[in-house]
Amino acid sequence: MWRPLADAARELVDLCVSSAVEEDEVRAAQADVEAAVARLRKARRTQTLGQEHLTGGRRRPWGNPVIGLRNPIAPPIVVHSDPSGRAESDFHCGAAYEGPPGLVHGGVVSLVLDQVLGHAVGAGGRPGMTGTLTIVYRQGTPLGDLRVEAWIDREDGIKTWAKAHIIGPRGVTAEAEGVFILPRALREA
Amino acid sequence: MWRPLADAARELVDLCVSSAVEEDEVRAAQADVEAAVARLRKARRTQTLGQEHLTGGRRRPWGNPVIGLRNPIAPPIVVHSDPSGRAESDFHCGAAYEGPPGLVHGGVVSLVLDQVLGHAVGAGGRPGMTGTLTIVYRQGTPLGDLRVEAWIDREDGIKTWAKAHIIGPRGVTAEAEGVFILPRALREA
Repeated sequence: MWRPLADAARELVDLCVSSAVEEDEVRAAQADVEAAVARLRKARRTQTLGQEHLTGGRRRPWGNPVIGLRNPIAPPIVVHSDPSGRAESDFHCGAAYEGPPGLVHGGVVSLVLDQVLGHAVGAGGRPGMTGTLTIVYRQGTPLGDLRVEAWIDREDGIKTWAKAHIIGPRGVTAEAEGVFILPRALREA
Repeated sequence: MWRPLADAARELVDLCVSSAVEEDEVRAAQADVEAAVARLRKARRTQTLGQEHLTGGRRRPWGNPVIGLRNPIAPPIVVHSDPSGRAESDFHCGAAYEGPPGLVHGGVVSLVLDQVLGHAVGAGGRPGMTGTLTIVYRQGTPLGDLRVEAWIDREDGIKTWAKAHIIGPRGVTAEAEGVFILPRALREA
C-alpha cells in the first residue's frame, strides 16, 4: 500500500517543477495534497524506517533516498548486484534532479554513485561505511535515461576500494572512487 | 503559488516514510494525491525550470534539488553567502534523507556539500562547474538540525579550490574539497 502512495507522490514531485497549469488549479492541487497530509499525519512511526528494519534484523531499505520504494525522493533506482562485487542500474533522472540547465545536479550524481558503490562492496562481501568518496566530473550528465556501474577495485585489511561511473548518451559523464571501512562487528567475525 | 504547493508536497514526502496510519487512510491519501496529479498534468512546461531561467537571463534556482523552493526533494536549505567567497546554512534533514539507521545518507551529505561549495565560489566571483569533489566522512551525520560551511581555499588560473564541512551536534561529520573550473565565457571577460 505504501508503494502506490509513494509512486503518486513521485509524480507529484515531478509536476511541482514541470507543471504549467494556472493558479486556480495549483491552489486546488495544494488543497488535495493537504488533505492527504492530514490523513497521513494521524499516526506517526516512533522510529525511522532504517531503525525499525535494523531492529527487525533485516535491512529493507524502503526509506532510502536513492532506492527506497517508499521514498518519493528516490527515482527509485533498481540496483542489480552480484557476489563478484559488481553492481549496476539503468535509471532515469527527470526534471526534479536538475542542477545546471538540462543537466543532473552534480550532487545527485555523487548521491547515486555513493549508493551503487555501497551495493558493489556489500555484494562482494566487503560491506562498510563510506570513508572517502572522490568524484571526477568528465562532462555534464544530461537529464533522462542513464546507466551506473560499480565494482570492487582492491582490498587491503579493513579497507575496500571500489570504483564506479555514470554513462550517458555520449559516454562516461562522471567517475567515482570510494574507500569503504569494514564495520567492527564484521572484522571480528 | 508554487511554493505553498511544494511545501505541502514536502510534508507528504516526509509522511510517506514516517506515517503509521492504517491501510484505508493510506489508500484515501493516495486518491487525494492522484487528484492533485491529474490537475497539475493538464499543462506541462516545454523547458525545464533551469533552461527557462537561463533563457530569461537570470538564474532563479526554483527547481534545484537542494535549494529550490518549488522542488519537494529539496529540504530546502537557505544558503547565505558573501563576496569574500564564503557560504553557510543551518538546515534540517528529516527521515526522508536517511541512509544508515538514524543517519543522513552519505550521498545526501555530498549533495549538500557540492551545492554549498558552488555558492562559495560563485559568491567569491569564481563560479564554475565542479571538476572534482572529494568527501571525507569523519563520523555519521545524524538526522536533524545541521550546519554547513564552505569557503574558497585558493585559486590558480581557471581553477578554484574550495573547502566545506558539515557540523552536527558532536562536531564536524564530513569534510569536502571541490575543484571548480571557470567557464570559458568568464575566462575571456
